[in-house]
Amino acid sequence: MTLEDAQALDAADPLARFREAFDLPAGLIYLDGNSLGPPPRAAHARLAAASRQAWGEGLVRSWNTAGWIDAPLRIGGKIARLIGAQAHEVTVADSTSVNLFKLAAGALSLRPGRTTILSETGGFPTDLYALQGLAALLGDRARLKAVAPAEVVAAIDEDTAVVVLTHIHYKSALRWDLPAVTAAAHAKGALVVWDLCHTAGAVAVDLNAAGADLAVGCGYKYLNGGPGAPAFLFVAERHQAQIRSPLWGWMGHAQPFAFEDGYRGAGDIRGLVTGTPPILGLTALEAGVDLQLDADPALIEAKGLALAELFIAEVEAAAADPDLRLASPRAPATRGLHVSFAHPQGYAIVQAMIARGVVGDFRAPDIARFGFSPLFLSYAQVRAAAQALAEVLATRAWDRPEFHSRAAVT
Amino acid sequence: MTLEDAQALDAADPLARFREAFDLPAGLIYLDGNSLGPPPRAAHARLAAASRQAWGEGLVRSWNTAGWIDAPLRIGGKIARLIGAQAHEVTVADSTSVNLFKLAAGALSLRPGRTTILSETGGFPTDLYALQGLAALLGDRARLKAVAPAEVVAAIDEDTAVVVLTHIHYKSALRWDLPAVTAAAHAKGALVVWDLCHTAGAVAVDLNAAGADLAVGCGYKYLNGGPGAPAFLFVAERHQAQIRSPLWGWMGHAQPFAFEDGYRGAGDIRGLVTGTPPILGLTALEAGVDLQLDADPALIEAKGLALAELFIAEVEAAAADPDLRLASPRAPATRGLHVSFAHPQGYAIVQAMIARGVVGDFRAPDIARFGFSPLFLSYAQVRAAAQALAEVLATRAWDRPEFHSRAAVT
Repeated sequence: MTLEDAQALDAADPLARFREAFDLPAGLIYLDGNSLGPPPRAAHARLAAASRQAWGEGLVRSWNTAGWIDAPLRIGGKIARLIGAQAHEVTVADSTSVNLFKLAAGALSLRPGRTTILSETGGFPTDLYALQGLAALLGDRARLKAVAPAEVVAAIDEDTAVVVLTHIHYKSALRWDLPAVTAAAHAKGALVVWDLCHTAGAVAVDLNAAGADLAVGCGYKYLNGGPGAPAFLFVAERHQAQIRSPLWGWMGHAQPFAFEDGYRGAGDIRGLVTGTPPILGLTALEAGVDLQLDADPALIEAKGLALAELFIAEVEAAAADPDLRLASPRAPATRGLHVSFAHPQGYAIVQAMIARGVVGDFRAPDIARFGFSPLFLSYAQVRAAAQALAEVLATRAWDRPEFHSRAAVT
Repeated sequence: MTLEDAQALDAADPLARFREAFDLPAGLIYLDGNSLGPPPRAAHARLAAASRQAWGEGLVRSWNTAGWIDAPLRIGGKIARLIGAQAHEVTVADSTSVNLFKLAAGALSLRPGRTTILSETGGFPTDLYALQGLAALLGDRARLKAVAPAEVVAAIDEDTAVVVLTHIHYKSALRWDLPAVTAAAHAKGALVVWDLCHTAGAVAVDLNAAGADLAVGCGYKYLNGGPGAPAFLFVAERHQAQIRSPLWGWMGHAQPFAFEDGYRGAGDIRGLVTGTPPILGLTALEAGVDLQLDADPALIEAKGLALAELFIAEVEAAAADPDLRLASPRAPATRGLHVSFAHPQGYAIVQAMIARGVVGDFRAPDIARFGFSPLFLSYAQVRAAAQALAEVLATRAWDRPEFHSRAAVT
């Protein structure tokens, strides 16, 4: 693809107008929005208002007057529109890890008599850790069975209470067939918890159309909600009255300000909220979610996949390095919005690209990962990024000592 | 006390210099720092820098370069100095409710064979709710026994794994004798989880000197960390290798970025961290904690108690209303830094005072609660607040319809 071709695609891009809504350093090509999305400009302004006006002037009164107390359900209701859920089926709360614990335990409560939590090996580790922690706590009342992805569906059986899967794999970007796996689980009487961390704001899903049960997701990737943004969770309406999360807190009580000694869960999605809402994090998250709502989810996914396709094609056309291997599925329909290449020098390659102003990230042992956030990337940038990767490989630019020293977070 | 007397106390107050460090509306007398502390001015600036520079310019690199990844332990180490702990015994994480769950479950893991979680009735409800949720999850492996405060110590027995108490009561401000109760529990082989929500930044405690085991606390009261600020937890060094929190997440793993399938806890305080740290909330919290570290904890407690004494004395001298009753302990040494008065019209009285620029809060069924944060309140303000309360009572100013309509959060 020529530069002119890329520029023509950008000129015709209905999402190009969103680029100005983000605060990104000039000249930087940021292919790591799948790890930490950049700030919407509105997030800066809203944070300042939350800090100076709502906190500084309103003080404690802002729980009522600035919409703080309603923020988890209000923002959850907005995220619901991005994932095919009803507004009252989603809330923001806690972290992805904590929400996984809540919903996996909640799923066990919905399937009494069943003890197996089924998941996949090699997924994002916090998912397995949350489930391992739950299983360790419950002793013989639950067991975690983690199998290779290809064996998951066949492993669902009559003892399976819940299947926990990440819709889009954090490393390979492999995309599960969400409706099909949900149906397969239901056929065996099992529930599914979908981890939508790399899905929300990126890939169109319709949880209600798929008959989905439960889901979690994070706010800081494609939702551009800020570093360590609060996470969200989804509980299908039909499960809300029965599900029992083990994390009881005052914000999930039917009447939080009655200050009763005995817990009575709210009986709806609010029952899954535990502690006091983290207002500053929620403020930035809402700015990111509001931007998403202004765009057509189908356009977002289509552009992200097109950017990824462009990147793969340009890299493979230009890079002659036999050690380079596409580590993501080739078929776009089975992939999310990031692309991974394996290379023995993956770490140093990522560093050499960062030195050239192209930010991707590394995932052990050998994966260079590049994310294609559709709201702020242009086709011309992705073409340039592919050229940078090809150049780093062709010139062995990675072969310098400074590109091999490991930072704490890689 | 005359106005001149109060002004003389203010002129001699070694903490008076801190008032300028806070952003508070001119003229407002804010007696609700025990619910939500006001913003340190530095919090505004640090939040703006976190949003614009660290997030906007540094992007994902800021996990390394802006100290994000270390923030929970760094800020925990600072809070440790406020509560008599070693730096490596405290971390910031999650909410108070979630941390209570982690530490109560962790205490059970430290006392195998014991099944009783002992707590008090009438405490802040989220504490009981977290314990009820844990007990419900564990079935016959744990039972929660909640007794009246006066019966707690006698109820500690050979089956008690852990006693969970709030050091300073959210409503009455009754202060437990932390060293004595800790010793009483230890004498029976039990552990104690102390909830320090109304303690940290207010009342001097020395956890290590008392031989304390475990503690939790929130960031948004006297630490002035912002609405819904992340909470903290303390695990005494001697328990860290053995304690088993059930909430396993990638940030508690021995090597988070090794992305291993199997959880291996860090084996130190970091093992109690679960998900990705909430950076924006941590940023504001650190500004509040840094201010505290600049003041002498003994001076903080002494001034807070003196303000409370002044308030009680002035109110009781000026208010002739027979329905008004001090609902806090009279002896300062058995009280925290807030004072509660019971009155059948408590709710409307608080509203009428807010209309006069004096912000306290109401706690059902009849408590008007006033907090005396030592870093930003003056003796003259507290004297004026007492006069306002006396005037509201004397003139029955509460007897207007607009002071009786209930907001969502009261």
